[in-house]
Amino acid sequence: MKAAPGSSPLSVPGFKFSGISSGIKAPGEKDLALIYSESPAVTAGVFTKNKVKAAPVKIAIKQIASRKGQAVIINSGNANACTGDRGFKDAMSVIADTAELLNIPPELVYAASTGVIGRPLPVQKIKSAIPGLIKKLSTSSIEKAAAAIMTTDTFHKIYSKKIKIGKDTGTIAGIVKGSGMICPDMATMLCFLVTDIAITPGTLDLALREAVDQSFNRLAIDNDMSTNDTVIIMANGFLKNKALTKKSLPYKKFQSSLNDIAYNLAKMIALDGEGATKLIEVIVKRANTPADAKKAALAVAQSMLVKTAVYGNDPNWGRIIAAVGYSGIELDERKISISINKTRLFHRGVGTNMEKSANKELACKEVIITIDLGAGKESANALTCDLTEKYIDINAHYTT
Amino acid sequence: MKAAPGSSPLSVPGFKFSGISSGIKAPGEKDLALIYSESPAVTAGVFTKNKVKAAPVKIAIKQIASRKGQAVIINSGNANACTGDRGFKDAMSVIADTAELLNIPPELVYAASTGVIGRPLPVQKIKSAIPGLIKKLSTSSIEKAAAAIMTTDTFHKIYSKKIKIGKDTGTIAGIVKGSGMICPDMATMLCFLVTDIAITPGTLDLALREAVDQSFNRLAIDNDMSTNDTVIIMANGFLKNKALTKKSLPYKKFQSSLNDIAYNLAKMIALDGEGATKLIEVIVKRANTPADAKKAALAVAQSMLVKTAVYGNDPNWGRIIAAVGYSGIELDERKISISINKTRLFHRGVGTNMEKSANKELACKEVIITIDLGAGKESANALTCDLTEKYIDINAHYTT
Repeated sequence: MKAAPGSSPLSVPGFKFSGISSGIKAPGEKDLALIYSESPAVTAGVFTKNKVKAAPVKIAIKQIASRKGQAVIINSGNANACTGDRGFKDAMSVIADTAELLNIPPELVYAASTGVIGRPLPVQKIKSAIPGLIKKLSTSSIEKAAAAIMTTDTFHKIYSKKIKIGKDTGTIAGIVKGSGMICPDMATMLCFLVTDIAITPGTLDLALREAVDQSFNRLAIDNDMSTNDTVIIMANGFLKNKALTKKSLPYKKFQSSLNDIAYNLAKMIALDGEGATKLIEVIVKRANTPADAKKAALAVAQSMLVKTAVYGNDPNWGRIIAAVGYSGIELDERKISISINKTRLFHRGVGTNMEKSANKELACKEVIITIDLGAGKESANALTCDLTEKYIDINAHYTT
Repeated sequence: MKAAPGSSPLSVPGFKFSGISSGIKAPGEKDLALIYSESPAVTAGVFTKNKVKAAPVKIAIKQIASRKGQAVIINSGNANACTGDRGFKDAMSVIADTAELLNIPPELVYAASTGVIGRPLPVQKIKSAIPGLIKKLSTSSIEKAAAAIMTTDTFHKIYSKKIKIGKDTGTIAGIVKGSGMICPDMATMLCFLVTDIAITPGTLDLALREAVDQSFNRLAIDNDMSTNDTVIIMANGFLKNKALTKKSLPYKKFQSSLNDIAYNLAKMIALDGEGATKLIEVIVKRANTPADAKKAALAVAQSMLVKTAVYGNDPNWGRIIAAVGYSGIELDERKISISINKTRLFHRGVGTNMEKSANKELACKEVIITIDLGAGKESANALTCDLTEKYIDINAHYTT
C-alpha cells in the first residue's frame, strides 16, 4: 500500500536507505541512492534481455549467481552503458569504494545506473559522495532512495505490504523508477525490493520471476527495451521465520503479495509514463491459451494508435480490434466483444454505436479496455498509458 | 520517376484512370477511384496479414487465385472493416455495379477501401457515383486516382519507370496511399501498380512479392498493421512482348524496376508519415545474415525513441544502439559503428563525441542512419519518419 499522508514512515526491519545529490544531475537534485541490509541477504535479480547491457548490469549478472547481497548503490543521470572498458572499471570502482566504507565484501554490493547512454560515468563525483551517502543511511529514508533513482519520473514510487507469517508480521517493500524506454519484455526500469521475511534462495528467485512476469513484463510505454533494466530483491530474514520454500504454508501469501507489489509499482510506472495523462489497463478475457491472452493484451497496450485515441477521448475501437488482429493469435471476429470501462463498443463482430457514452468514460484518469475473445477460459492483463504531445517533447530533447 | 512539372501526363497503354468525389468525405474531396484495363490483365496481389480483414480484402483474396483482373474500384474515407455481413454484401454490391456498367465479369473487379474502421460503407453514395466515375475514365487521369485514395496523406503519390523490352519500351506505374497504421509486416497502405508489359501470372506474383518484401515490408511508421493493406498489380500485355518469365532476358530489369518503384513509393509514404517532418532511412551493413540485417534495421526504424530524437535533432546514438541490442540478433558492441549521414557517432563500442556535427546533419529533410555491425557481409534497409507532436494530434482526434 501507499503510505497515507501523516502516517509513520515505512521501514523494513534490518534495512537502511539513503538518497542524496552527488552533482551528476543539477545541484540539489537527488541522484545517488543506497539500500543496505544490516546482514547479508538472500538476493535474486532479473535483468534486461538487451544484448547491449550497461556495465553495472554485466557485473550484477555475475554477482547474482551467488544469490547473496547486502547493498545496492544506484545513480540516476547516467546509464553507464556503451562506455567500453572505462565504464566497467568505473562501476567496479564505485562498488569497491562502497564496500570498503560499509566494511562488507565487494561481491555483496550491486551497482545500478540509469540515465543517458554513452557518456562516461562521473565517477569522481560519485566516489566523493559515497561517505555522505553512507552517513545518511536510515531506516526511515526509503522515500529519499526512491527519489534519487528517478529520471524523467514525475513522482517517486514506493509500494509495500505487510503479511502474517505465523504469529509475526513481515514486510515487503519496493521502489521503482520508470518512465520511458518501457518495453514488455521486461519494462525499462529499475526496481529494488526488500523484505525481512526469510526465504530460501531458489524460492526467492522463482517468486521474483513470477512477479516480474505478471507485472513489468506486461507493461508497455514505448516498446523500447533499455540497456539497464534491473530488478533486485533482498530478503534479510530479520523476521526470524523458518525460511520459506515453495512448500511452506505462507508461501502463497508471499507470492501473491510480491505479485501485488510488482503490479502496483508497474501501474505507477504506467501512470507516470512520459507525458502520460491516463493509465490504461488492457484486460483480455476468454482466450484459448494464457499465451494468446498475453499476446493480445500486449498488442493493444503497445499500439500507438490505441494510445493516442485514448488520449484524445476517441472511442476508436477499430484500432483495438486491429491490434488484436495483428497480435498473431487465431481469432473469430464474430465472437469478439470490446468495452471501454463499462461501455460495450463492439459486440460479436459489429459496432454498438455507443461511442458517445464511451467518450465520457475516456475522460477518466484510468481507462480499462476489456476484450472478450469468446474463445476459451484464459485471461491476461497489460498496462500502458496514453501517448501525448508531451512524450514527443520530452524525448525529442532529452540529451541536448 | 516523378513527373517533371509541365511534362505530358503519365499514361500506361491500355489503362484508364478516374478519381472523383462521391460524398463519403467532405464535399469536393476526392474519395472514389477506378483503375481499368481495356482487356483482362494478368493480376497479382499481396494483402494484410491481420487476422481481422476488411470485407473487400476477404473478397480480393479469393478473386486473386484466378490471377486475372481488369478493374479496381477504391474508396477512401471508410475502411469497410468490422462491418459484419453487411460489409461483405456492400462490397459485393459495389463490385457488381462496377462490373455491370463496365460490361465485364464481376470476378475481374477488385474492391479496396481505406479509412475509419467499423462504420457501415455509405454504399448508396458510392453506387450513385459509379456511372460518373466510369464516364471520367481517361488515360491521363492517374493523378486523380492517386488523389482519391488518400486518407491523411498530404500529397498524392505516383512513381513510374520506363524499360526497354527488346526494341520496344514498356511502362510500370504505381500509386500508393499511406500514411498511418504503418507496420513493417506489410506497411498499412493501398498500392496499385499497372504495366503494359506482358508477363506470366506466376512470374508476376513472384516479382510483386519480392518488390513488396524490399519496400513496404521495410517501412515502419507506427507499427500498427491495418485491416485493409492491399497491393495489386495488373499487367495487360499491351506492349505485345513475349510474356516474361523468370528466365527471360529482360526479367531482371523488370524486377529491379518494380523494386525501385515500390521502394520509392515506400519512401514517399515515410516522408508523408502522419505528422512527419523528416524521412529516415536506416541502413544496416556487415550483418551475419540477411535476416539479422533486416531485424536490426526494422528495430531501429520502429523505435519511438529514435524517431523522436531525430525529430528533435538530437544525436542520441544510445537509443540506436539500444534498439539494435533488443532486435534479437547476436552482436558484439565492440565491433559496431553508427553514423548519422556522414558523421560517425559511435565507433567500435564507444562514442566519438561528434554530437555537434551530427546535430547539423539531423537538420536535413532526409536522415540516413548507418549501422555497421562489423560481423558479416549482409545489408538491409528500412524506412521510417520522425515522430512529432503532430502525429499525436492527428491520431488523437481521427474519428471524432
